[in-house]
Amino acid sequence: MSRYDKIKQAAYEANMQLPELGLVLFTFGNVSVVDRELKVFAIKPSGVPYKDLSPDKMVIVDFDANTVEGTLRPSSDTKTHAVLYKHWEKVGAIVHTHSTYATAWAQSQRDIPIFGTTHADHNTVDIPCAPPMSDEMIKGDYEHQTGFQIMDCFTERGLSYEEVEMVLVGNHAPFTWGKTADKAVYNSAVLENVAQMAFLTEQINPSAPRLKDALIRKHYDRKHGANSYYGQ
Amino acid sequence: MSRYDKIKQAAYEANMQLPELGLVLFTFGNVSVVDRELKVFAIKPSGVPYKDLSPDKMVIVDFDANTVEGTLRPSSDTKTHAVLYKHWEKVGAIVHTHSTYATAWAQSQRDIPIFGTTHADHNTVDIPCAPPMSDEMIKGDYEHQTGFQIMDCFTERGLSYEEVEMVLVGNHAPFTWGKTADKAVYNSAVLENVAQMAFLTEQINPSAPRLKDALIRKHYDRKHGANSYYGQ
Amino acid sequence: MSRYDKIKQAAYEANMQLPELGLVLFTFGNVSVVDRELKVFAIKPSGVPYKDLSPDKMVIVDFDANTVEGTLRPSSDTKTHAVLYKHWEKVGAIVHTHSTYATAWAQSQRDIPIFGTTHADHNTVDIPCAPPMSDEMIKGDYEHQTGFQIMDCFTERGLSYEEVEMVLVGNHAPFTWGKTADKAVYNSAVLENVAQMAFLTEQINPSAPRLKDALIRKHYDRKHGANSYYGQ
Amino acid sequence: MSRYDKIKQAAYEANMQLPELGLVLFTFGNVSVVDRELKVFAIKPSGVPYKDLSPDKMVIVDFDANTVEGTLRPSSDTKTHAVLYKHWEKVGAIVHTHSTYATAWAQSQRDIPIFGTTHADHNTVDIPCAPPMSDEMIKGDYEHQTGFQIMDCFTERGLSYEEVEMVLVGNHAPFTWGKTADKAVYNSAVLENVAQMAFLTEQINPSAPRLKDALIRKHYDRKHGANSYYGQ
Repeated sequence: MSRYDKIKQAAYEANMQLPELGLVLFTFGNVSVVDRELKVFAIKPSGVPYKDLSPDKMVIVDFDANTVEGTLRPSSDTKTHAVLYKHWEKVGAIVHTHSTYATAWAQSQRDIPIFGTTHADHNTVDIPCAPPMSDEMIKGDYEHQTGFQIMDCFTERGLSYEEVEMVLVGNHAPFTWGKTADKAVYNSAVLENVAQMAFLTEQINPSAPRLKDALIRKHYDRKHGANSYYGQ
Repeated sequence: MSRYDKIKQAAYEANMQLPELGLVLFTFGNVSVVDRELKVFAIKPSGVPYKDLSPDKMVIVDFDANTVEGTLRPSSDTKTHAVLYKHWEKVGAIVHTHSTYATAWAQSQRDIPIFGTTHADHNTVDIPCAPPMSDEMIKGDYEHQTGFQIMDCFTERGLSYEEVEMVLVGNHAPFTWGKTADKAVYNSAVLENVAQMAFLTEQINPSAPRLKDALIRKHYDRKHGANSYYGQ
Repeated sequence: MSRYDKIKQAAYEANMQLPELGLVLFTFGNVSVVDRELKVFAIKPSGVPYKDLSPDKMVIVDFDANTVEGTLRPSSDTKTHAVLYKHWEKVGAIVHTHSTYATAWAQSQRDIPIFGTTHADHNTVDIPCAPPMSDEMIKGDYEHQTGFQIMDCFTERGLSYEEVEMVLVGNHAPFTWGKTADKAVYNSAVLENVAQMAFLTEQINPSAPRLKDALIRKHYDRKHGANSYYGQ
Repeated sequence: MSRYDKIKQAAYEANMQLPELGLVLFTFGNVSVVDRELKVFAIKPSGVPYKDLSPDKMVIVDFDANTVEGTLRPSSDTKTHAVLYKHWEKVGAIVHTHSTYATAWAQSQRDIPIFGTTHADHNTVDIPCAPPMSDEMIKGDYEHQTGFQIMDCFTERGLSYEEVEMVLVGNHAPFTWGKTADKAVYNSAVLENVAQMAFLTEQINPSAPRLKDALIRKHYDRKHGANSYYGQ
């Protein structure tokens, strides 16, 4: 028994959802879950196939990306997770995938336009695509800098990470997060779905307009507003 | 035992078909089934995952959208269902999904052109896309108004809901209906299939013409006309 | 025991392959298998879901489309099958589907260009799309005329049905055939695959050229020529 | 017991991964595994359905494509495998498929541009598309020449087969390889995934730029460089 058992179990279960939801090929994705009191998070070990995972293989890492417990090397994206946990204090879990449609938008270096209510049920803005990183950031501490690239994008646009729980990293792929592991994984699946529908929308009507403000506000509020009435 | 058991069971079974047919992600869809004598319908509870559903969790609602039986909150789209049952007296069941291709057409604010016999087997017209709602309607009783937006679209175009059992709500997603729950779900799957093929048709031949009238009439009549000869 | 048991069993098994191969939604497809000695064929009953099929539900029909044995109504496309069996004397089985990509090409009223060796492994020519039928043919004996529309297309283009075992009927959907039931079903799956790849090829390179003659001949001959060396 | 049992088993298992990964329709693919000491490789028999395969059905062939052991005819692509094993001395296994997106790029006669880090995790260059073969090569010893066409493409571009483990053969389809059977199959799945994302990227942004050099180098090196830190 370790005092990290709870987040190990949560990280394991969340990681296992990725292949089930069709969001990863081989090992191209990872989920972490944080313990805010202990100031550590549990994350998938690097390059280990999903079928070989178990809760005890999750690696425990602190917010400076030092391994605290575990014999395996943590995900190569660990420093990005660490930076986000350190600076965004209400994030409970983080997911990174290379899911097909979201990654194609990231490679296109375009925000995903808000075209419909499926999008507005989750975000009131276009899903942001952070620009590709500068050569200096890349050659420096790359994964660490990726975290700052994400945060800088949110700062420049005046976005709140508590409202917008997803981002595309230009030329790379999506990251999503949430208060819980389930919500963070849910966001990755929603993003992939919205990314596919936005691609199709532009193919069907290249001049399709963004969703009107009244609908954006209505759909977001019925799920997330003070008087929300979605769910139980 | 409740006198609503029959429609609860029917609504449960119809809801469970949606994930099986690949028409919903998470909880993005709902089916209701009406009892015309009792003037109520059974509908999916809001935000409950399909795997956690059971017949007794279905919520019984009247045509003014008041809950008559059930402890869970009904689908957030309940008022749209209620309006349609109230005014379209021969509708037996209603399905709402955010299925990928049909939703992309809705986001594109375009009718789905009738390009082939798969379409004509089910409709003699382009599948209508109701325009996005006015700001007044959205800010008012939104889901209630969505029902009127659908009915207004049919009235303006002179369409019969008994002939055309599907619609796209602009910037939102599809609704379908039918005399029975099975038919309403069937229509959602057909719509998604027709939406995908119409998208592909325009990609393959941007100047593909609509289906000629003789073929539209022939295919519709062999399934639905006075001398239909499809099925048993 | 009926003397038709063999073709009933073969037709049943071939029909059951269609949903397994992802070629049909609901009942949108049918397979028939002929007995050349008895001059009849076994075909799927109209509108019966695949999961409810059994060998004894297959309907036995002669080449003038009269039911010879069976209590169910045969497929609404039966007359098309009958015409093809009557006139193309070496056809052993026929498949009709509304598979997604092949149907999109049919709706586009375009032949599928021969872009690669996957296509050339099976055909030396573009896959023909018969033009939509004239209003006279449609208003007459429609399914009967569909058979002639297919045969006329082959005659006009100088194609042999023994070499080219597939066709698109303009605005409708594909038909394939073969010496055996397995080959006819195989051809439907190959056609769908080739249709998808041709669609993608034109999207990736709108000026992609047709396959050069030497490659067409080489690939076809290594599977079908006098000195073929594919398979056992 | 045969001294070839090890490569037969490895080739069998690798072949069985192809349908599981969705990379083949029917028999449109094959894997071989080499024994460098015995100077032979085990390859799938031609045209045998995957479900009928077993380790003992693998055919043992030498580097001049002569069958050494086995009663079945080896894959029609055997000579291509033999040439590559003979000249590229560190290749341990070879995979050929007609996977949908990679084949569409091959049919388009275009290299797959390096658009993102998923690509750069595996290659620092665009995935090469060898030009279609000359009529002389096709009419000569076709499959033998296909091997040379691949090698010539690498020589002309100054590529190393140890770094770039995949190629498109123009108008035909992909070949991938690797030090082990698992790696070669893995490469086929990665190629298909990258091919799909590159197609989507160009659809979403027709002027999407290639990935910047710093990111190409960073992602490749963290998986493959002297200081790689991906995996265990």
